[in-house]
Amino acid sequence: MAPDGSALEGRGRFITLEGGEGAGKTTLSRALAAALAEGGLPVLRTREPGGAPGAEAVRALILGQGPWDPVAEAMLHFAARREHVARSLEPALAAGIWVVCDRFADSTLAYQGAGQGLSRDVWERLCDLALGPLRPDLTLVLDLPPERGMSRALSRGDANRYEMQGEAFHNRVRAGFLDIAAREPGRCAVLDASRPADEVLSLSLAALCERLGVPA
Amino acid sequence: MAPDGSALEGRGRFITLEGGEGAGKTTLSRALAAALAEGGLPVLRTREPGGAPGAEAVRALILGQGPWDPVAEAMLHFAARREHVARSLEPALAAGIWVVCDRFADSTLAYQGAGQGLSRDVWERLCDLALGPLRPDLTLVLDLPPERGMSRALSRGDANRYEMQGEAFHNRVRAGFLDIAAREPGRCAVLDASRPADEVLSLSLAALCERLGVPA
Repeated sequence: MAPDGSALEGRGRFITLEGGEGAGKTTLSRALAAALAEGGLPVLRTREPGGAPGAEAVRALILGQGPWDPVAEAMLHFAARREHVARSLEPALAAGIWVVCDRFADSTLAYQGAGQGLSRDVWERLCDLALGPLRPDLTLVLDLPPERGMSRALSRGDANRYEMQGEAFHNRVRAGFLDIAAREPGRCAVLDASRPADEVLSLSLAALCERLGVPA
Repeated sequence: MAPDGSALEGRGRFITLEGGEGAGKTTLSRALAAALAEGGLPVLRTREPGGAPGAEAVRALILGQGPWDPVAEAMLHFAARREHVARSLEPALAAGIWVVCDRFADSTLAYQGAGQGLSRDVWERLCDLALGPLRPDLTLVLDLPPERGMSRALSRGDANRYEMQGEAFHNRVRAGFLDIAAREPGRCAVLDASRPADEVLSLSLAALCERLGVPA
């Protein structure tokens, strides 16, 4: 886990994991962070909404209340994101730490945009306000038919407000993620999340090797 | 209190009360709403941050946590405001109801902008996102030297995070409100809040008469 000198030269890399419910983001996040740390890189593993104290409080508010007006809900997500960026992500990346983040701005576009009808223009304006120039260096999109993901997610119990939406919603969210990946193929890699977890990890490490030059 | 027919013809008017701590906004809001209702107008009295269930929850979060990143804090205020606009203000105004609102978007510009350094540009972009075309028809700015207002506010006990800021902050907030009024003299009327409450009410009703054509 100890950072080696060369990894701290310059800025860390920002890797985000995206996808619908039950796609295996948390499992992959844990395995990916462990693999990078074994390779001698300093790694911060984090998630959204949340990842900083104020952001976690906003997360609890978003999931605990509602329904929200769509623009208000997107603003709450970006307020949490701004806290996360300012308090955790930017300081870590500036210090040369690699970040593996479970969900980021693409989730707001897929869930609130494709899922709930928020316009892409509003999302872009909120990105500009909250993120400054920060964008992920690599985004791994874990793709899975919603019915498979939902059965995994629901078996965990404690379904949140998004998980409890119907099938049509989750189909729109999936299409939203695939559209994001199609628009930005240089940043995004789509992975078949129906594969076993160790294969998904291997595919992810291959993407890191190819896109970011990390030895797999 | 019962709405009469003529008042419901067309849209209600949106009146906001602005100013620093202890300037008498709540007292004036109550008296103004009562005076309008006595004149036969249907009136909604509300406040920010808050005024709708989700917005009140965001208010509790803003005041209960922190310090927030300045952009995150402004986004939380505008998320609450969007809920308030969508759930309460727009439906009321569309139904012909007059609204008397204790604080609105100007407070964010004075407190987060003049007080805490948030740029006017970010504030304007958040206004565009959250408010659509809605702007107050009349804003009464209750002006008072901060030391007088703070002694009133602190004597109420239970000082919140803004009230606990130092004198320099409250001087910047006061200057922020006066700057807003100077930029938009057609919308804003500055009232001397050091006068007795009944005089402040008379001045307010005179402003309503002059600007909105309401018989005082």
